[in-house]
Amino acid sequence: MSTLLESYAAGRWFRAADDGAPLLDAATGDEVARISSRGLDVAAMVRHARETGGPALRSLTFHERAALLKALAKHLSAAKDELYALSLRTGATERDTWVDVDGGFGTLFSYASKGVRELPNDTIVLDGGLERLGKGGTFAGQHLYTSRPGVAVQINAFNFPVWGMLEKLAPAFLAGLPTIVKPGSQTAYLTELVVRRIIESGILPEGTLQLIAGSAGNLLDELTVHDSVAFTGSAHTAGILRRHPNVLDGGVVLGVEADSLNCSILGPDVRPDDPEFDLFIKGVVAEMTSKAGQKCTAIRRVLVPENLADQVAEALAARLAKVTVGDPRNPDVRMGPLAGLGQRDEVRKAVEALRASAEVVFGDPGGAALLDGDAERGAFMTPLVLRARPGATEPHDVEPFGPVSTVLTYDGVESALALAARGKGSLVASVVTHDPQVARSVVLGLAPWHGRVLVLDRDDAKESTGHGSPLPVLVHGGPGRAGGGEELGGVRAVLHHMQRTAVQASPDQLTAITGRWTTGAARAASGVHPFRKSLAELRIGDTIASEKRTVSLADIDHFAEFTGDTFYAHTDPEAAARNPLFGGIVAHGYLVVSLAAGLFVDPAPGPVLANFGVDALRFLTPVKAGDTIDVTLTVKQITPRSNADYGEVRWDAVVANQEGQPVATYDVLTLVAKTWED
Amino acid sequence: MSTLLESYAAGRWFRAADDGAPLLDAATGDEVARISSRGLDVAAMVRHARETGGPALRSLTFHERAALLKALAKHLSAAKDELYALSLRTGATERDTWVDVDGGFGTLFSYASKGVRELPNDTIVLDGGLERLGKGGTFAGQHLYTSRPGVAVQINAFNFPVWGMLEKLAPAFLAGLPTIVKPGSQTAYLTELVVRRIIESGILPEGTLQLIAGSAGNLLDELTVHDSVAFTGSAHTAGILRRHPNVLDGGVVLGVEADSLNCSILGPDVRPDDPEFDLFIKGVVAEMTSKAGQKCTAIRRVLVPENLADQVAEALAARLAKVTVGDPRNPDVRMGPLAGLGQRDEVRKAVEALRASAEVVFGDPGGAALLDGDAERGAFMTPLVLRARPGATEPHDVEPFGPVSTVLTYDGVESALALAARGKGSLVASVVTHDPQVARSVVLGLAPWHGRVLVLDRDDAKESTGHGSPLPVLVHGGPGRAGGGEELGGVRAVLHHMQRTAVQASPDQLTAITGRWTTGAARAASGVHPFRKSLAELRIGDTIASEKRTVSLADIDHFAEFTGDTFYAHTDPEAAARNPLFGGIVAHGYLVVSLAAGLFVDPAPGPVLANFGVDALRFLTPVKAGDTIDVTLTVKQITPRSNADYGEVRWDAVVANQEGQPVATYDVLTLVAKTWED
Repeated sequence: MSTLLESYAAGRWFRAADDGAPLLDAATGDEVARISSRGLDVAAMVRHARETGGPALRSLTFHERAALLKALAKHLSAAKDELYALSLRTGATERDTWVDVDGGFGTLFSYASKGVRELPNDTIVLDGGLERLGKGGTFAGQHLYTSRPGVAVQINAFNFPVWGMLEKLAPAFLAGLPTIVKPGSQTAYLTELVVRRIIESGILPEGTLQLIAGSAGNLLDELTVHDSVAFTGSAHTAGILRRHPNVLDGGVVLGVEADSLNCSILGPDVRPDDPEFDLFIKGVVAEMTSKAGQKCTAIRRVLVPENLADQVAEALAARLAKVTVGDPRNPDVRMGPLAGLGQRDEVRKAVEALRASAEVVFGDPGGAALLDGDAERGAFMTPLVLRARPGATEPHDVEPFGPVSTVLTYDGVESALALAARGKGSLVASVVTHDPQVARSVVLGLAPWHGRVLVLDRDDAKESTGHGSPLPVLVHGGPGRAGGGEELGGVRAVLHHMQRTAVQASPDQLTAITGRWTTGAARAASGVHPFRKSLAELRIGDTIASEKRTVSLADIDHFAEFTGDTFYAHTDPEAAARNPLFGGIVAHGYLVVSLAAGLFVDPAPGPVLANFGVDALRFLTPVKAGDTIDVTLTVKQITPRSNADYGEVRWDAVVANQEGQPVATYDVLTLVAKTWED
Repeated sequence: MSTLLESYAAGRWFRAADDGAPLLDAATGDEVARISSRGLDVAAMVRHARETGGPALRSLTFHERAALLKALAKHLSAAKDELYALSLRTGATERDTWVDVDGGFGTLFSYASKGVRELPNDTIVLDGGLERLGKGGTFAGQHLYTSRPGVAVQINAFNFPVWGMLEKLAPAFLAGLPTIVKPGSQTAYLTELVVRRIIESGILPEGTLQLIAGSAGNLLDELTVHDSVAFTGSAHTAGILRRHPNVLDGGVVLGVEADSLNCSILGPDVRPDDPEFDLFIKGVVAEMTSKAGQKCTAIRRVLVPENLADQVAEALAARLAKVTVGDPRNPDVRMGPLAGLGQRDEVRKAVEALRASAEVVFGDPGGAALLDGDAERGAFMTPLVLRARPGATEPHDVEPFGPVSTVLTYDGVESALALAARGKGSLVASVVTHDPQVARSVVLGLAPWHGRVLVLDRDDAKESTGHGSPLPVLVHGGPGRAGGGEELGGVRAVLHHMQRTAVQASPDQLTAITGRWTTGAARAASGVHPFRKSLAELRIGDTIASEKRTVSLADIDHFAEFTGDTFYAHTDPEAAARNPLFGGIVAHGYLVVSLAAGLFVDPAPGPVLANFGVDALRFLTPVKAGDTIDVTLTVKQITPRSNADYGEVRWDAVVANQEGQPVATYDVLTLVAKTWED
């Protein structure tokens, strides 16, 4: 008997009391492992995540969490060979495994990078700008995101045992939520191996990742407000989850990524001898055969102009005829088996349903000519192209989760969009066109129905990642039938796991709460110029109130001549007088900020290493000759960099005139050494 | 018999076939109106919204929609007197009506303003920056929001018949969704009057607002993907809506704002003689008595330090004793009746439940001493303060929707937070404290459980809008028991009504699709300097490729002396050489952008009126003496202003050195005349 998979629960590996059910090699039918969660205490797992994993994780900043994800990705990369070897047993070709394994690691790296670059080195995230709530400036609002004190349950499909786990884990982990993952049983041995390598490494804090190998039992009964369930799988199972009382009435947040009848549209502008025609055919074939079509993003509906339908069907047939099917251990095999015989039965049933309104124009629904492999015990299937009859409804309703696509014809862009919409919401659509007007109308028409839309043409084809590939930086999910969930999309998925709250308070209190200086809060002007303070000494609110400088007409003239910026508003009194906004000569905005720097800078070598940028500069009041300006610079935000001996300091800058009116406001961004000795 | 309220359906006023049910004056018991929707064709309403209202609305830009909201707010303001008069019949005092009516109009004005200032003058919204998806720059991703081609059904509670409708209508309207509103029956006559004034005005496109007076019948059966239901009311009704098949499996998006056991916390730092003690008492009393406590944001749980509980109870009693109860027609009345006798029965039942673990310490649960009014027929009730016994559970579970609050005691910040969390998710919490450390720990502990948190102290009290007031610019909603929905929050609520989609394409295609120039897309350099083109002539992608200029050491020296910015990296070769980022003298960043302006500007009077700002300026590579720079300026976005004869043009600026390396990138913001004649 093969190995019984274990769950990782409440800090130890758990082995079920029974022998479990067998998991079979997709190509050979041999037993790979057995699976059971009988006797597993899921309530203890939830407690462990809540009491041990969550608090440990939430004590780290986003940058610290990101660093752990990066370390994890590096660590797992060393285990690539054994993962590739085991992945063969799922029926995956090497290329399929690359998508699953390297795609999973890439997702970790991407989140590690986004976590540092787009989240603060803190445990909360500010959302949007300050909302002034009173004229006097004593009452203001700031939205912020905090971590929910809950547990993220992740229920994955069998088709991506590695990527599926990591793409949900990474954003939840960054958000401060401990994960309990329940992979699809069929390929759970691969997920279990990855979890073993993760746990062994000790990189993730204990309790932040637990594994259920086998049934999740009554796990949902243990969940409450602040817990979330992210589910990828069938609409049927999603419906069961949606009906759980803890989801309906208990505040458990459920995200679903389910059935999706994605389409690819051949643009009405494309002729058979255009490069886009070939790109379209290649794209459809790639999606049909990659993972043997077992991808929730695969192209199920092939929408083509009426007059090209025959040519498309022929070109698909010609290309698919070259796709070798068989045991993925044979390197000449391009498409492996489905995940199992049961899965193949499901696909065959779906094909039968489709045939009510479509004919098979390529492939044999009953069998498969194999390059290599056991036709009896392996779940092999040939790619199938169907062609729908006019008015067909099944192609918009039936999802064959295998190497099957149906060609439908359209007549004009509106008709193509209407067909696409009959999927009732999908994960992804693609349109192959080189015409920008077609691209605009098709994309904006598809967008409300899709989480992702790909435009493929000769310009992006070489770098395109294809119709079927979710990317960590782009959202993955779709409205309606696709489940209504949204995963990935960089920081967006992190924020989905957090709670947004509007905080109303005085500027001083907001500064204390957010750790970021808020307009209107107290400023601390001391004897020491803040440019003399290292990151360790600098405090939020430290301020420079500068000397004053009068801007003369000679300054303006000189600056115009020196820089070459002789715009009439700075040089020609009569023309400037006619300018509706100025009514006379004004100083250059760049002169104002240059003089302001001259007023606030501390020249001698010190902890401030560089000014690396300026944000949100607005010129509010014109500066005229004779006006006197000063500048107030206040430490707004301090972000130490984990991997450098300096950090970023954001300064609030206000340049005012002799009336006290602000003439320019902006943020100055500097790099400041963590320590400094004069 | 009184008037039968009418529904506004499919372009006409509909009168039910039967006599309807009576709606009674809250204070006198007299019949105000009758209500019925019998015979109403809700399917036709949905079709009308889908086919007439939606397309009309989505053909307008956000700025055009915002302008209609503004016109509507102005128009309704003229009807204020009749609304105030009719509002008396709901039991509202003048101050209560101010919250409902003026609060509703204020929400319209706020959305009109946000729509222009924070949304583009376009029909789509870009979300986040460009994601580069390939090293060669030929493949990129951009998230965008598009309008759903659906219908927004809005089901409101009886307590805010005007604000409740307008706060849901405004963001849905901006998002491009036609509204079908179903007010709470008890006060539907007031909503009906507002809808009448709106429809009469002809300001909103036909089909964008319809009204159901009475039961919504089988409305949900008519909804599908892209339709949404926003519900405010009881958790019980929310549960029924959540169980509708079109919500469970049909892709209808349901947003809920339901029961909420909001708390207010008296900070552990506050002493009885601090101003915060009085602010706390005033806040609790205001929330108990405003709208007779019939607000989903009212304070139900009063959390105070153990040692101050007696003093708090006494102070509440003293202040509540001065609250006059009666018919709101009497100007000396401070608190009116509940909305109806049935409502009062509900509250009395809730009070009985609370008394299982709490004692009444102020007020008479059985009756009310009235200043004025009919004690038999009016739904009057006295304010009630209860004091919970240790370990009480009912105060965390039972929501008395009336002038009732329960005092609970805590011991330390962690204990206060644990009590607050027992509400299982609420709309709002407040904490009254002047201690920044208390504010930080309490707010960050409350935040995951709340949609809004107010910090009240001596500094913001004067301008504070209070615990119970949702504001249009701040999110309204809460996790868990509060429903999990999110309304308002400025543009956030607009985007909740739209679909986010990741678009992947070449830069040229992205430019065509988004109407915004995308890095990597073609630039159009023509013989005409783009500064010579008016808004009408300017095109996305129009480009200035400047001449070159060599930056000399003399330039740097001179700029340092002229501006006073003598930072050592620009002036001291030895010290600059030791700077870890520069390794020698570098030009000032401000010098680089000033010279760049000199290179790109066209000096003579023309359509470009002013440079009003700079965004996202980053210095990427140091410019050293002898380096030669040029600048490429490309039209990125054109935003005509509806109320001015100019618009905003955002230019992409790239300053490069002689190696072609970018040394600085930023957006230049200018105002450009719509037309221009030399």
